[in-house]
Amino acid sequence: MAGNTFGQVFKVTTWGESHGKALGVIIDGCPPNLPLSESDIQEDLDRRRPKSAPSSTPRREPDQVELLSGTFQGMTTGTPISLIIYNKDIDSKSYETIKDVFRPGHGDFTYQKKYGIRDYRGGGRASGRETAVRVAAGAIARKVLDREEILVRAYTLELAGVRAERVDLDVIDKNPFLVPDLDAAGHMQERINEIKKSGDSAGGIVEVLAKGCPAGLGEPVFDKLDADLAKAVMSIGAVKAVEIGVGLAAARLLGSECNDEITPKGFVTNRSGGILAGISNGDDIVLRAAIKPISSIEKEQRTVDINMKPTTISVRGRHDISAIPRIVPVCEAMVRLVIVDHLLRQRSIV
Amino acid sequence: MAGNTFGQVFKVTTWGESHGKALGVIIDGCPPNLPLSESDIQEDLDRRRPKSAPSSTPRREPDQVELLSGTFQGMTTGTPISLIIYNKDIDSKSYETIKDVFRPGHGDFTYQKKYGIRDYRGGGRASGRETAVRVAAGAIARKVLDREEILVRAYTLELAGVRAERVDLDVIDKNPFLVPDLDAAGHMQERINEIKKSGDSAGGIVEVLAKGCPAGLGEPVFDKLDADLAKAVMSIGAVKAVEIGVGLAAARLLGSECNDEITPKGFVTNRSGGILAGISNGDDIVLRAAIKPISSIEKEQRTVDINMKPTTISVRGRHDISAIPRIVPVCEAMVRLVIVDHLLRQRSIV
Amino acid sequence: MAGNTFGQVFKVTTWGESHGKALGVIIDGCPPNLPLSESDIQEDLDRRRPKSAPSSTPRREPDQVELLSGTFQGMTTGTPISLIIYNKDIDSKSYETIKDVFRPGHGDFTYQKKYGIRDYRGGGRASGRETAVRVAAGAIARKVLDREEILVRAYTLELAGVRAERVDLDVIDKNPFLVPDLDAAGHMQERINEIKKSGDSAGGIVEVLAKGCPAGLGEPVFDKLDADLAKAVMSIGAVKAVEIGVGLAAARLLGSECNDEITPKGFVTNRSGGILAGISNGDDIVLRAAIKPISSIEKEQRTVDINMKPTTISVRGRHDISAIPRIVPVCEAMVRLVIVDHLLRQRSIV
Amino acid sequence: MAGNTFGQVFKVTTWGESHGKALGVIIDGCPPNLPLSESDIQEDLDRRRPKSAPSSTPRREPDQVELLSGTFQGMTTGTPISLIIYNKDIDSKSYETIKDVFRPGHGDFTYQKKYGIRDYRGGGRASGRETAVRVAAGAIARKVLDREEILVRAYTLELAGVRAERVDLDVIDKNPFLVPDLDAAGHMQERINEIKKSGDSAGGIVEVLAKGCPAGLGEPVFDKLDADLAKAVMSIGAVKAVEIGVGLAAARLLGSECNDEITPKGFVTNRSGGILAGISNGDDIVLRAAIKPISSIEKEQRTVDINMKPTTISVRGRHDISAIPRIVPVCEAMVRLVIVDHLLRQRSIV
Repeated sequence: MAGNTFGQVFKVTTWGESHGKALGVIIDGCPPNLPLSESDIQEDLDRRRPKSAPSSTPRREPDQVELLSGTFQGMTTGTPISLIIYNKDIDSKSYETIKDVFRPGHGDFTYQKKYGIRDYRGGGRASGRETAVRVAAGAIARKVLDREEILVRAYTLELAGVRAERVDLDVIDKNPFLVPDLDAAGHMQERINEIKKSGDSAGGIVEVLAKGCPAGLGEPVFDKLDADLAKAVMSIGAVKAVEIGVGLAAARLLGSECNDEITPKGFVTNRSGGILAGISNGDDIVLRAAIKPISSIEKEQRTVDINMKPTTISVRGRHDISAIPRIVPVCEAMVRLVIVDHLLRQRSIV
Repeated sequence: MAGNTFGQVFKVTTWGESHGKALGVIIDGCPPNLPLSESDIQEDLDRRRPKSAPSSTPRREPDQVELLSGTFQGMTTGTPISLIIYNKDIDSKSYETIKDVFRPGHGDFTYQKKYGIRDYRGGGRASGRETAVRVAAGAIARKVLDREEILVRAYTLELAGVRAERVDLDVIDKNPFLVPDLDAAGHMQERINEIKKSGDSAGGIVEVLAKGCPAGLGEPVFDKLDADLAKAVMSIGAVKAVEIGVGLAAARLLGSECNDEITPKGFVTNRSGGILAGISNGDDIVLRAAIKPISSIEKEQRTVDINMKPTTISVRGRHDISAIPRIVPVCEAMVRLVIVDHLLRQRSIV
Repeated sequence: MAGNTFGQVFKVTTWGESHGKALGVIIDGCPPNLPLSESDIQEDLDRRRPKSAPSSTPRREPDQVELLSGTFQGMTTGTPISLIIYNKDIDSKSYETIKDVFRPGHGDFTYQKKYGIRDYRGGGRASGRETAVRVAAGAIARKVLDREEILVRAYTLELAGVRAERVDLDVIDKNPFLVPDLDAAGHMQERINEIKKSGDSAGGIVEVLAKGCPAGLGEPVFDKLDADLAKAVMSIGAVKAVEIGVGLAAARLLGSECNDEITPKGFVTNRSGGILAGISNGDDIVLRAAIKPISSIEKEQRTVDINMKPTTISVRGRHDISAIPRIVPVCEAMVRLVIVDHLLRQRSIV
Repeated sequence: MAGNTFGQVFKVTTWGESHGKALGVIIDGCPPNLPLSESDIQEDLDRRRPKSAPSSTPRREPDQVELLSGTFQGMTTGTPISLIIYNKDIDSKSYETIKDVFRPGHGDFTYQKKYGIRDYRGGGRASGRETAVRVAAGAIARKVLDREEILVRAYTLELAGVRAERVDLDVIDKNPFLVPDLDAAGHMQERINEIKKSGDSAGGIVEVLAKGCPAGLGEPVFDKLDADLAKAVMSIGAVKAVEIGVGLAAARLLGSECNDEITPKGFVTNRSGGILAGISNGDDIVLRAAIKPISSIEKEQRTVDINMKPTTISVRGRHDISAIPRIVPVCEAMVRLVIVDHLLRQRSIV
């Protein structure tokens, strides 16, 4: 049963396969009278594009977005916004070799079991390429957030075991790993080079920060703001854990170490990550996602073919070493979608 | 905008406040022709009830469930199942003192900001009591899972810094903390006694295991099985992090350490936690939730009143030291709801 | 798959069987800070109760509603409102005779085919009694509409072939058939007496009028206001047709006879029934529902038993001759639910 | 709030404006392993295309559909199917004259009130052109129905006061009005010629017939099959009434004239239109939609401009005299969507 739509009021539906004709997204429920152009969206897409970082694939994706509906004379009209990205740089030949083999860590096996058929070219619908249109949708969400002066930024907190020691938002876009700490970025590059050489891949942690979010967003009891954020971020391919505020560390704290005391000036600390009982408290929203290493590695692994006969696989070709940094804008986009959706949901409470 | 319904096909809607007349749940979409009685549900509710463990409140909640609709002659009919638990042991007087004060770590502040009004008695809708009816709904989900021979069990993996060293499902119900390791249970009790004495509270980790789940459950791309599990578990009040399989540790592994190799006999390891690309792979599903310490503590904390004037608070009365073990069956119930929902969703794919 | 919830923002979920323990409804998404008491709801329920009109059953249903959650100190809190009506005057014995026989015109046959099981007592979930809780939900919707000064009134336009010649809202509650024309009411009574004597039943037409609805409600393209109204009203058991504005007559008009010209003072006519392109235009909303005769008649009819063996049936006992007037407040309630839902949906467009 | 998605399991989302770059539709939830090609869809679209009938506009719309995702090697994969129709024959100049004037009977006024902005070119999103992609989606639904041997056919029952005297499905596609009676088709043409000459437009009635639908489809209590059909058909622009089975006539029948008696061979009559208590009974499903005359007429009408100043309008240009026959395949498509959706919804009940 259909699972390609996200959001209740600001509804996002994505479609498309990695090596199909195109990928796209419909945004239904965007408020009217917002200025919107293709370049607004392209800007965010370009940020997602592979940089010259050694962690990234050499595949050149132009990811040129086209805006097909929902605007008139440069303004949104309240009708569905349709965005499309045609696939151009497609070379499916290399996938013939894995047509009949399940790659460990990939969705090959599970898609086959689920549907009894799969588009094996480039991962089909399970490809990371699907996230390009999430970023495009997030760029439209950003237009709504800008009007409310809410800032959402994601960055690499950790990559291949190297952790950022500081968070300087100004340097995120000044290094290929989108790290808020230039020193750490340098160390990451060294570590990534080593791992690449060994035919292996690396994981990391992405942190997302939302500033300026008003108190009151989030719907008890199932559609809590943190619940929807957890779903949003966990729906990104490589994510294996989501933490809000102190996160996992909460398990080992005492109550007195975990509560945020309140003064007339606001909360003294922000261990809650800006969310209490599933509702935003006006403080910064902070979450982290643990990203597993890219599954496609050169190192030989045991696997089976579609007839369940044993074989081995060594994945070569145009693959990233880490989903970071490409996944960073995707996390940012998903958090934006959740916040805009809850912002609009809250309007019915007057 | 309404947020009290969970699930797409097996739809669960909860209602009720901690100190209102009653709490209840509607299960819409339960298949017909399943045997179902009140005692099936009562059994799970009793497991949630405060035990003699020092971590729990002395409040005696009978939590007697009544089945009001959706069955005929002991069988489900396919129509909505309505369950109700009347509140009996209510003493709201003690809450008068906190009527005008926001308790740190609680939803008092955010509910007030969201709605401009709140039922402050016992936490109102934000109370842990709301989860009783989730457990009741989970008991009905269990009837569906039993038929499919899918077993879901939750247990305490860690409490107050003490971690279970082994997972023996048979001993879970033989100790007050629902730990699968009796030695650890003993250490937990000591540690909890100390913390209680100091007027503080403690966090922990709950693990949930689902065995027998067929491959193919989970809907790309937003309604991935792990995404829906993350939302389900994060929607429980005290949860601050959710991990699937290796979870947070994935961030520091290499690809060769994180992938699960495949042989004709199945997956060699289960680092994925039974989910690949958001779809179950037939292996055990494993997730963990980090539980923050109970926010209500005797230790004095700074806070403000509803006029934002500074004050202090020391919460006395019938409070738990930890959401564990009461939260354990709730985690189990939420995971059941997700699996049943996806089991039924998958039926449209034929 | 679950079908017992109506509405997107103002969400209504009903449950319960005619001869089960109780019936109820959850209203999720009602705005906070509205005054609400049981008597507000009881008033509307009493209007639905069988009157001394010869068209109605002698069954005395107290239909005493209880408000179980979602209010605090007489005000709504924004949390789910749970209403319950316990079944008291139950005599299921008379239904034993039809336990194994499908009554023509009833859902006996289709429920059995759908679920493979059915609660045959009093129609189970398919009973008109289910609509009592729709009326209760509509009473809460009325509280929202009152605040916006929107008036929704339903009345009997035609019964047993007798049509109201005028619409005087003031006399609706002054006659047992809820007709806005006292002369017509008298003629209806005569006609109903005759039909009752002959062991037969009668149909009619209910009209619903909504005054004060602002322009702009309704969502292109599928959730048009008239589309949602059509669904709402057609979801009431005995309804076989729904018309908006000129309705069926539109098929035989010319464009110049069907368009509403516009002047600075507003629309010159209201052939559209207050809705253009699925969106309210600020004029009165007018719809009509055709109600089929009650299916349970004393006249002998051919039918089959559950083994598909031929038999005959003559339904005696406590049955209405017409769903009118009991269905009138139900139509009114469903229209209220749609308008409130779209009123709240429109708030996200700013 | 978003209203461009239809269906619960077989989910259809449309987008696009009449004079924008393109229109399109996403079908999410289509079962995998169905053969599907662009020509399957094009066939239905061509049937919708303006014929040489005098009721139709001379605008030549190629309506060439492209299939962008969701299939692999000619088979559906279970992932979202994206269809696009680029707008080619666009001449927006003629719309400059009505840019500032509200056309009676159109959505110009209501869209402006709702959104505060509108794409006035060719009706924008409110244009009948939007229905092209509904027909495309219906063509995919047809692939599912074919497999189940369910046949859905729509035809013109009445046009401009001329009614079909017989229903011969074989002649529907042999006359420009899609009437199942060639004699009636001839009379319609004469009547249409006269109306066209007088600068006016005409309404009619479309009937839809579904054969082979199994008993058991439709979800109590709000998502009844007839309720969803009513919504589906009423969501088509020009529809002002929807009837099921005997429809409006039910209001004037006696119970003994309205019930369908049952014999071991099946129902003796089909006054119910194949639906009892909202669930299909296995008999033919029959519904009718009343279509209002096209609102754009040459006859001068009073109206106002966007500043609410009085003016007059006479709409010239490429306009149809009646939505019939173009609306016929749209009604057929919407009924298909409902039946497929309920067919898939029913699969969760096992």
